[in-house]
Amino acid sequence: MGKLNVTNRTKVKRLPQRASYETEVIYKILDGALVCHLGFIYKGSVNIIPTFYGRKDDLIYIHGSYNSRMLKLFSSGEDVCLSVTIIDGLVLARSAFHHSVNYRSIVMYCKPEEIIDSEEKTKALEIIMNHILQDRWQEVRKPNQKELDVTSVFSFKINEASAKMRTGPPADDKEDYDLDVWAGVIPIKTSYDKPIRDELLRENVVLPEYIRSIEK
Amino acid sequence: MGKLNVTNRTKVKRLPQRASYETEVIYKILDGALVCHLGFIYKGSVNIIPTFYGRKDDLIYIHGSYNSRMLKLFSSGEDVCLSVTIIDGLVLARSAFHHSVNYRSIVMYCKPEEIIDSEEKTKALEIIMNHILQDRWQEVRKPNQKELDVTSVFSFKINEASAKMRTGPPADDKEDYDLDVWAGVIPIKTSYDKPIRDELLRENVVLPEYIRSIEK
Repeated sequence: MGKLNVTNRTKVKRLPQRASYETEVIYKILDGALVCHLGFIYKGSVNIIPTFYGRKDDLIYIHGSYNSRMLKLFSSGEDVCLSVTIIDGLVLARSAFHHSVNYRSIVMYCKPEEIIDSEEKTKALEIIMNHILQDRWQEVRKPNQKELDVTSVFSFKINEASAKMRTGPPADDKEDYDLDVWAGVIPIKTSYDKPIRDELLRENVVLPEYIRSIEK
Repeated sequence: MGKLNVTNRTKVKRLPQRASYETEVIYKILDGALVCHLGFIYKGSVNIIPTFYGRKDDLIYIHGSYNSRMLKLFSSGEDVCLSVTIIDGLVLARSAFHHSVNYRSIVMYCKPEEIIDSEEKTKALEIIMNHILQDRWQEVRKPNQKELDVTSVFSFKINEASAKMRTGPPADDKEDYDLDVWAGVIPIKTSYDKPIRDELLRENVVLPEYIRSIEK
């Protein structure tokens, strides 16, 4: 663990006290979110695509169909921007102006590197699947060569990234504390509902423990 | 309500059966999400910033500090890409390959238009705040001129956008239906926890009905 170099692109200029470049902080936020948004330039326009990902050490993995426009473009080695956002709460101040949000976010710039070797590809897919649902990989039917051949996998090195976050209660102007306006934080969380069995599932298959334990 | 023209940028090429260009569908997804991700080019790099927004008719409004890098750039009239993603469920198939996700997403391309007039600006801020928390605006201390002057507000016309979504159970390869692997959908939702009162809140202020009613 350590601290990333701050670059022109990752230096947080607005409210720099909310920023961190510590890998420990960055990894923890990356591990706590489900989806990232990838930004890239295609024919002169900015595009954003949401996608799942997984992390191991200082690498993020993403995957997709080998004929996806985005992944074809990634092979060209252009930089992409990866954004991860977790909203933890609405911060309700007495004034409209001081309303805010408690959040943890990452912005990261990187060059996608394609993974070609089937074994490495399989390992990366395992990391992505277990990021989405811990221990799922061990149960499923693993990808065969034909499936691997139509799946593109890329890694992004986490070396140009910053975290930004806010926690805590609202901060109002001094004179507004006398107002009878409800103020505080409404916590927000992502939760899971009761799993819905596939109707075609064989009767003898029971809900595995690793899924039952994520129920809320 | 109607259907947007499909452009080169909004035409969904991967799994086009999941796409929609109907404004009714697009508006509903936009109204159901909390945060959007904005992509823009700054000094040759793609940047992504998450932000709150609000919608009224065919306009999306966003706001921020007048000296934010992103909003200064928006004044230049360059196109931005707006992405909204709602994850509804993890789709667990018997094979790793057929794992998927139930989601509703929007991708939109637009030219930001700055709103200068204080009254229009205030109206846009009301739309943004009520998008985040219905009826909040009526209770709070409204922005004064000084606050409006340091807030930039932009509108984006929704005329180049597409929706993409998936629903339903996993779709496995025929021969995999014999496997004893649990398959189905784990629904995901964003929910609110019990509101946390600001410690400095006057004792007589009770939790308003519009906040109590969003508790889950």
